[in-house]
Amino acid sequence: MDQFAISRSDPSFLTIEQWARKIEEALEAPSLIGPIRNIRDDDRRPFDAIFVGGGAAGRFGSAYLRAVGGRQLVVDRWPFLGGSCPHNACVPHHLFSDCAAELMLARTFSGSLWFPDMKGQTTSIKEVVDLFRRGRTGPHAVMNYQSKEQLDIEFVLNAPVRIVDASTVEVAGEVFKARALVLALGAEAIRLDVPGHDLAGVHDFATLVETLDREPGDTMVVIGGGKTAIEYGCFFNACGRRVVMLVRGRLLDLIRDGDTRAYVIDRVREQGMEIIEGATVSAITGDAVGRVARVVADTAAGAVQIDTDFVFQALGERPRSRAAVEALGVAVDNNGAVLVDEQLQTSVSGVFAVGDLIGAPMEMFKARKSGTYAARAIMGEKVCYRPVDWPDFLHTHYEVSWLGLSEEEARACYRNVVILKMPPDNPNGLNVGLPAADRTMLYAMARPHMSGFQKLVLDGDSRRVLGAHHVGYGAKDAFQYLSVLVRRGLTIDELGEMDELFLNPTHFIQLSRLRAGHRELRSL
Amino acid sequence: MDQFAISRSDPSFLTIEQWARKIEEALEAPSLIGPIRNIRDDDRRPFDAIFVGGGAAGRFGSAYLRAVGGRQLVVDRWPFLGGSCPHNACVPHHLFSDCAAELMLARTFSGSLWFPDMKGQTTSIKEVVDLFRRGRTGPHAVMNYQSKEQLDIEFVLNAPVRIVDASTVEVAGEVFKARALVLALGAEAIRLDVPGHDLAGVHDFATLVETLDREPGDTMVVIGGGKTAIEYGCFFNACGRRVVMLVRGRLLDLIRDGDTRAYVIDRVREQGMEIIEGATVSAITGDAVGRVARVVADTAAGAVQIDTDFVFQALGERPRSRAAVEALGVAVDNNGAVLVDEQLQTSVSGVFAVGDLIGAPMEMFKARKSGTYAARAIMGEKVCYRPVDWPDFLHTHYEVSWLGLSEEEARACYRNVVILKMPPDNPNGLNVGLPAADRTMLYAMARPHMSGFQKLVLDGDSRRVLGAHHVGYGAKDAFQYLSVLVRRGLTIDELGEMDELFLNPTHFIQLSRLRAGHRELRSL
Repeated sequence: MDQFAISRSDPSFLTIEQWARKIEEALEAPSLIGPIRNIRDDDRRPFDAIFVGGGAAGRFGSAYLRAVGGRQLVVDRWPFLGGSCPHNACVPHHLFSDCAAELMLARTFSGSLWFPDMKGQTTSIKEVVDLFRRGRTGPHAVMNYQSKEQLDIEFVLNAPVRIVDASTVEVAGEVFKARALVLALGAEAIRLDVPGHDLAGVHDFATLVETLDREPGDTMVVIGGGKTAIEYGCFFNACGRRVVMLVRGRLLDLIRDGDTRAYVIDRVREQGMEIIEGATVSAITGDAVGRVARVVADTAAGAVQIDTDFVFQALGERPRSRAAVEALGVAVDNNGAVLVDEQLQTSVSGVFAVGDLIGAPMEMFKARKSGTYAARAIMGEKVCYRPVDWPDFLHTHYEVSWLGLSEEEARACYRNVVILKMPPDNPNGLNVGLPAADRTMLYAMARPHMSGFQKLVLDGDSRRVLGAHHVGYGAKDAFQYLSVLVRRGLTIDELGEMDELFLNPTHFIQLSRLRAGHRELRSL
Repeated sequence: MDQFAISRSDPSFLTIEQWARKIEEALEAPSLIGPIRNIRDDDRRPFDAIFVGGGAAGRFGSAYLRAVGGRQLVVDRWPFLGGSCPHNACVPHHLFSDCAAELMLARTFSGSLWFPDMKGQTTSIKEVVDLFRRGRTGPHAVMNYQSKEQLDIEFVLNAPVRIVDASTVEVAGEVFKARALVLALGAEAIRLDVPGHDLAGVHDFATLVETLDREPGDTMVVIGGGKTAIEYGCFFNACGRRVVMLVRGRLLDLIRDGDTRAYVIDRVREQGMEIIEGATVSAITGDAVGRVARVVADTAAGAVQIDTDFVFQALGERPRSRAAVEALGVAVDNNGAVLVDEQLQTSVSGVFAVGDLIGAPMEMFKARKSGTYAARAIMGEKVCYRPVDWPDFLHTHYEVSWLGLSEEEARACYRNVVILKMPPDNPNGLNVGLPAADRTMLYAMARPHMSGFQKLVLDGDSRRVLGAHHVGYGAKDAFQYLSVLVRRGLTIDELGEMDELFLNPTHFIQLSRLRAGHRELRSL
């Protein structure tokens, strides 16, 4: 105390609360607030880099460049740093998935304990969306505060940006130059290319948050079969809607372990989700006022027509590279992803690209890390960044996490694969109250088959962990650290030596300990 | 398929479902079922060890001894293996803590979204206890199935056990001998030693589950200030009761990081818990029918009287060593803990002791690991087991996890302590919607100060992590693996290189990445 005294004497200092108000005003009326400018005009050093786009990649790249002693500028059209993630992408999805988990619990125990009778009841989707709209400026404000007061980032926000050339941008009439340009323009939802795709009521993850203005009806159609499709589909289902998922290929093909995928899909079906695989949407038809009324799809069983007033499309994302291609001629691949080398440099010297703009995996860790690696390259370090072998997850009504090899992949490569799993193989199938842990205890006691599934895949010869798979709650965070240990050669013996925090969501430590005594490992 | 064919042809084979029924019957009428005996009478080898007590320590020790090729027997008075943990100790506490988390959420959002109006409403405690009583045989059954069919453990259950000498026990009239005896007798709740301690309505964690036969009234008194006290106190509070905690010393002294402890206690108070520190209970008085009516305590502010029909005592646990002392003369310490060396051997040659019987820490990891270490010692391996530097946790309405040093401890030892925390220091205090993650999203959006607190403690000189502290959900499991990395010398630079699974409950990876660029580390 008072560490804020100096900052407070700075007339540009804003508390987190003040930032929240300013961001709200700017979102309401951008031009009324005008550019939000935090530039040290007394710093005479040239900029080492300008980050075009202040999402995760641009913000983390900026922070890192600043930390290693460089000078950066980050520019963004939005009045906050952090990008689409906290505004209409990953953070709302987490809120909706959290609601899906809570609502599945409430519907499962409907009318018992303290849970209300939810039979036949729908839950308002719009209220949750509205809650998010009101709440999202809080995290924005934290990030602006942190960026300015703690990370010393220079920025111009709430202003359109024009890329002039490989070292120049124009922001709200002001021209800035730097040694390097870092393109961090992100990606946007791929939109259906069928008649009716622009009818009112046809949404993607961004428009759901930005424009939903009425409660969806009883039937909701989700188009897609990957992470985003299942995450939003489960939320709509948990809100009491009939949900039909139209999947061009196989649902959740990205879950490569067969048992895990089967458990996930069984639970999703059990909640009443209707899944049509091999379905290609051919048209969306509207009503007299231009609102979606019906989806038509071709399937193996013939044409399907679904009456609905709400369509959610989750067809993946496309890098937002057009402006950069037009202004700079950076090379892109067939999907529009900007091509970069291992220093994150594009085909144009001095121009770097990071985040979703450079293509898959469009995940937070890659956005942030590619930003920092570009910063290091620009500051003269020889770096090499290629995301490999990362842990992964998705939400259904559950959290689903995985790392390393599936059982099938392991069996294709190793002669002596050993599996530790919970529940164990047994003649009652999955109707077993283990695994159990935080957030699944009520299921474990009263609906045991809903309490989760998990599997550890081992090489019995080297005794090393090859893969781990988890359906439940509270293990996602652990997979971050576990994956590091696995990459470093974690064995069943080392796992068995660890200290579990009982009741641990991953039962891997204790399952390993039960088997580690064997010279010839056996499955469990 | 069918891997169960052989087992099924064994007349002693039971499915998990069949085990559940058998255990239920035995709990109902032990003598009707009689000893549950799984002994390979065709195996002519002598027993290497008899585990007296089939809780976590005895069961894991048995499994390990069997895995390394030995022959063991485990005996227990209960009809299941796994001991008190899944029957009336850790597992019910997890159920109650899960309910506390759910109920805090429901009460916070009472009457909005899908949550019922809970204002002024109490929630039945007895219904949750009854749910547990009905559900607990499921996990028991899994463990019996696993122990017999997968771990090849030999056992006699549901029978009283008498220790005859250092190599002999008698179980239901049958005498068994072994090279070694492993005492795994567990611990039991320490009971208040004041007038009225035996009135109806005075409970501990075991009697709550075993004997609660009526709904507690509006005021509940909890005596104690450690893990068990706060965990049950928060559950009672979440069920809408006035909870008064009478703490002899300081509440939650075991949370050594000051900021973390303050956040935890602020949240507990915010939920309406009344905490009286420095309180010594002097008497419990009863009503005409022998039920508790009032608790009297001495405090710094004078005597306090609280009218209540329910008292929960959580004064710690005492090792259940008396029978072993009387039968074998094993040496114990002042708390009754059996003294063992690093091979887990007691003062009596050939007699080992494991689990809660050997004293603190009375945690699951120590029970299980000490069992396996004793097994290894008995099978001729030179082992050395002392629990050191384990990660730890407790429940309030939240999960609270920690490892390594508190900030205060670090500052006492290191000249250049660096802190990364979320929320950041800021003039609005904690009213910030970050950290946010699974299970805190609704708070993050609408009650930001409830969305958690976390802190990483670093040595700025070596750049190594010294400690980590987390209040929220979904990080407990991670602390198991993170603690291994920390013991191996984890640095801020290595953390910043990891791949986070956004929105990760521990924000440590991204906070580290934001700072790792600095040669001279700075707090965040």
